[in-house]
Amino acid sequence: MDFLPDDVVEIPDDTFATALAEMTIALGADAVLTGDEATEFRDPFQPEQWTAFWPGAVVQPTTAEQVQDVVRIAVRHGIPLWSQGQGRNNGYGGAAPRVSGGITVNFRRMNRVLELDEELCYALVEPGVSFQQLHEEIRARGLQLMVSVPDLGWGSLAGNALEHGLTYLPNGKDFMAVCGMEVVTGDGSLLRTNMGAMTGNESWNLYRRSLGPSLDQLFMQSNLGIVTKIGIWLAPAYETIQMVDVDVYREDDLAPLVDILRRLRLDGTVEGVPCILNTLLLASTMGQRSEHSTADPSRPLTDSDIDEIAQRLDLGRWHLRLALYGDEPVVEHHFAKVRRAFEAIPGARVTGTRTTPAEGPGLPNPSHRVYAGVPDLDWKDMGGWYGGTRGGHMSFAPVAPLKGETVLALHRWMRTFFEARGFDYTADIIVGNARSVCHVTGITYDQDDLEATEMAYRTLQDLVRAAGELGYGEYRAHVHYMDLAQAQYDFGDHAYLRFVEKIKDAVDPAGIFSPGKQGIWPRHLREDRA
Amino acid sequence: MDFLPDDVVEIPDDTFATALAEMTIALGADAVLTGDEATEFRDPFQPEQWTAFWPGAVVQPTTAEQVQDVVRIAVRHGIPLWSQGQGRNNGYGGAAPRVSGGITVNFRRMNRVLELDEELCYALVEPGVSFQQLHEEIRARGLQLMVSVPDLGWGSLAGNALEHGLTYLPNGKDFMAVCGMEVVTGDGSLLRTNMGAMTGNESWNLYRRSLGPSLDQLFMQSNLGIVTKIGIWLAPAYETIQMVDVDVYREDDLAPLVDILRRLRLDGTVEGVPCILNTLLLASTMGQRSEHSTADPSRPLTDSDIDEIAQRLDLGRWHLRLALYGDEPVVEHHFAKVRRAFEAIPGARVTGTRTTPAEGPGLPNPSHRVYAGVPDLDWKDMGGWYGGTRGGHMSFAPVAPLKGETVLALHRWMRTFFEARGFDYTADIIVGNARSVCHVTGITYDQDDLEATEMAYRTLQDLVRAAGELGYGEYRAHVHYMDLAQAQYDFGDHAYLRFVEKIKDAVDPAGIFSPGKQGIWPRHLREDRA
Repeated sequence: MDFLPDDVVEIPDDTFATALAEMTIALGADAVLTGDEATEFRDPFQPEQWTAFWPGAVVQPTTAEQVQDVVRIAVRHGIPLWSQGQGRNNGYGGAAPRVSGGITVNFRRMNRVLELDEELCYALVEPGVSFQQLHEEIRARGLQLMVSVPDLGWGSLAGNALEHGLTYLPNGKDFMAVCGMEVVTGDGSLLRTNMGAMTGNESWNLYRRSLGPSLDQLFMQSNLGIVTKIGIWLAPAYETIQMVDVDVYREDDLAPLVDILRRLRLDGTVEGVPCILNTLLLASTMGQRSEHSTADPSRPLTDSDIDEIAQRLDLGRWHLRLALYGDEPVVEHHFAKVRRAFEAIPGARVTGTRTTPAEGPGLPNPSHRVYAGVPDLDWKDMGGWYGGTRGGHMSFAPVAPLKGETVLALHRWMRTFFEARGFDYTADIIVGNARSVCHVTGITYDQDDLEATEMAYRTLQDLVRAAGELGYGEYRAHVHYMDLAQAQYDFGDHAYLRFVEKIKDAVDPAGIFSPGKQGIWPRHLREDRA
Repeated sequence: MDFLPDDVVEIPDDTFATALAEMTIALGADAVLTGDEATEFRDPFQPEQWTAFWPGAVVQPTTAEQVQDVVRIAVRHGIPLWSQGQGRNNGYGGAAPRVSGGITVNFRRMNRVLELDEELCYALVEPGVSFQQLHEEIRARGLQLMVSVPDLGWGSLAGNALEHGLTYLPNGKDFMAVCGMEVVTGDGSLLRTNMGAMTGNESWNLYRRSLGPSLDQLFMQSNLGIVTKIGIWLAPAYETIQMVDVDVYREDDLAPLVDILRRLRLDGTVEGVPCILNTLLLASTMGQRSEHSTADPSRPLTDSDIDEIAQRLDLGRWHLRLALYGDEPVVEHHFAKVRRAFEAIPGARVTGTRTTPAEGPGLPNPSHRVYAGVPDLDWKDMGGWYGGTRGGHMSFAPVAPLKGETVLALHRWMRTFFEARGFDYTADIIVGNARSVCHVTGITYDQDDLEATEMAYRTLQDLVRAAGELGYGEYRAHVHYMDLAQAQYDFGDHAYLRFVEKIKDAVDPAGIFSPGKQGIWPRHLREDRA
């Protein structure tokens, strides 16, 4: 299966057994999962017959000291580790490791909220704390705080942040909710970033920098250490939240939608992270394809099929969701301005729902709950477009300038690419900052249809390559095409990769931290693969 | 002089001459400064008799290719380089290198504005472009853009940003104006960060991250490469700017001032970077000590001396400056809220000046011009408090949580520390984000008074050590106590420093990039010093 990079690390059985026995002593028997217990930590959307990206075992430490033990044992025996938080990153491979046969470090049992500071609006959490857990703790304590959350609230704050996962409140924009980490490094040391590098310094999670180079961003989407604590900035409970939903009815309306939004983002009218969703993305959150259309599933839906779905669901071809936060008169002014701006697009519909943080959990629209900082699982089944509960989905997500003409052209090109291979095209254009988008496209398939699944894998790989030729790169990569995605970053004879590889070899000489993550390999595996 | 860490690199004369000759061939004779021509690139506030931190020569490249040539020649001959932009970082040592006898790379001649994009609000500049130059170019082209500037506008955008220099507009907060760099690395490669790592990717200066670990923050305040291009985010010209000045008249009013400001920063009422200045800081911008007070200069000014100065200058004991940006009705609402909030402090005076970006250059108050994005040199002579034109100044700037009680206690402790050693105490508490401050204290001295100058050096060193014991670390360090400032970051047996040293040795094996910067040394110099 040439489309499935099925790397397996070669470890003698007795070496693996010895390492696992040592970890069992260090962590306790209930912290070590093998055989069927470890099955959950594979790619949930890979057909069962395929065997790429399988962990040899899973360990679930509960303290930083236990993580240090795991790292020291792994270094001693040369066992690759693969670390995540809850392991819910399903659109990109879930908990699955790039290299099979190693040990996955999962943090579901290391989930204490260590600090929750209402005055300074931040939390310090262990890597297993989920969005849902933190939100519940804030409510239980009656604190006037809001968490910037993603669409699915079961993942961990750390896992999401460390993968550059997007969240939607103002303090989540530009991936900037993180401040300060504790990290177990390749020599088993415990490092704290920023001001945390000084014992007793109370600004660890309040100031983003070090004296010297700052490391928070170096430990994100990387394999240079294992994060054991992370600071997350929260928002105060705003007086008012104004949900804004904009529907436009022609595909080309994407261009003015983007240009208007850019101006509103740049001048501070709209903070936070708006999304522009196409009809089929929203339809996929409300049932599988066969519930929406009787069209032949072997060919992609046509424009008129999509228009029909849009009409029945009372949606546009594009649906922009955003929220305004602040004092009532400010929100009032900004909403009027936003409405006026978007209503300049012929036929556009702008609707508004005014609410408060306290009312968030009761809002009927899942998007509204999310923009009110309420974690949600409503969109959990959107991968079932084809195949229902056996549906799989994967994402391809290039970054592009926030310019109408550019975003529309990229959209058209990707839609054509998907449809030419028989797939419907879903788009979630996430406006992470005021100048660029992460253009997340989803491909869904029936896992029981091996031919379709293989086609989905091949389509994404072809797309990564073709987009790279056009100058578009991904903001994150599915485990099955991480190398290919990284290979597109070719400036200066791949100067970025060569530089990061030097760092990798220096700080992780045993090459145990998540080998292959984002296409970054330790020296001995680079040589094996060359 | 045990207080002056006078490291000199040992390079045989003929090796240095050969290297310089090769650089002269590569860059042209007018790009190489030696002898008296290089004098300007020493610490401007060090007495002439002292000889620490002297460059052996200065080179002024004009292209990235020339920088690559300089790096390759330096690697070949083992010559330390020390790079800056304009070299105006005077309060921390100016252009002066940590190690004497190497070659300083200065960018005054590499100063092209490569891109200036009104639609997406950013600039791509070479490292010598100053705030003044960019501002003039924006005005000359009639673009509706604003630059976030520091108090003195002669420095370069790159030099300021790379040293974690603070600027004051909303897009400058949290040091986040930077997006995307081009860097010459230790093997002479040209690396581009973020999406720039892909040839032809147009999101280089629009999206902050890489696929894999992101490097922008790694190249800031560091010695891992030389930055040859940098992306800077700009703001659109806001409809309204509301300058707000708050004076409070008792020293203890600092605590409520900070607490009120924190709440206004956290809920988004106040964006940008406010500053809280004490009376003497402001007085120092308006003339030397003898012009303000007849008090004996050999002892620090007393509270009643300071009250007298405050009264004559019509200032509080603390003066908060901030600005509100946005649409007129929003600014109106926020200003009323800000006024109400601060007037709760008994005796507080809140004044407002409403203006626009176009009116900025004509504003009489230099702080107002700066908050309108207009570069300025009005505060250039504030170091002349003692000694007038022969005055020197140095800064000590710990980071602290944005909590009234904490900031007040830190202030009191530092004031006592300075005054016990005979110095007046100036404070500029810069609120770089909504959760922490950079508490910049200045010490000024007469360079012709060697005893006072030595006392100033010793005072800062003692302060770095004593503050470290209390858990306070610096956000940047003067060249003369970089090692000491770094030594305070001791968590995990100095895990941060050990980790960064591994990176340093891996990416700069010849150890040529700014050795000793922020206390980070290449391996061979660590061993020499051990």
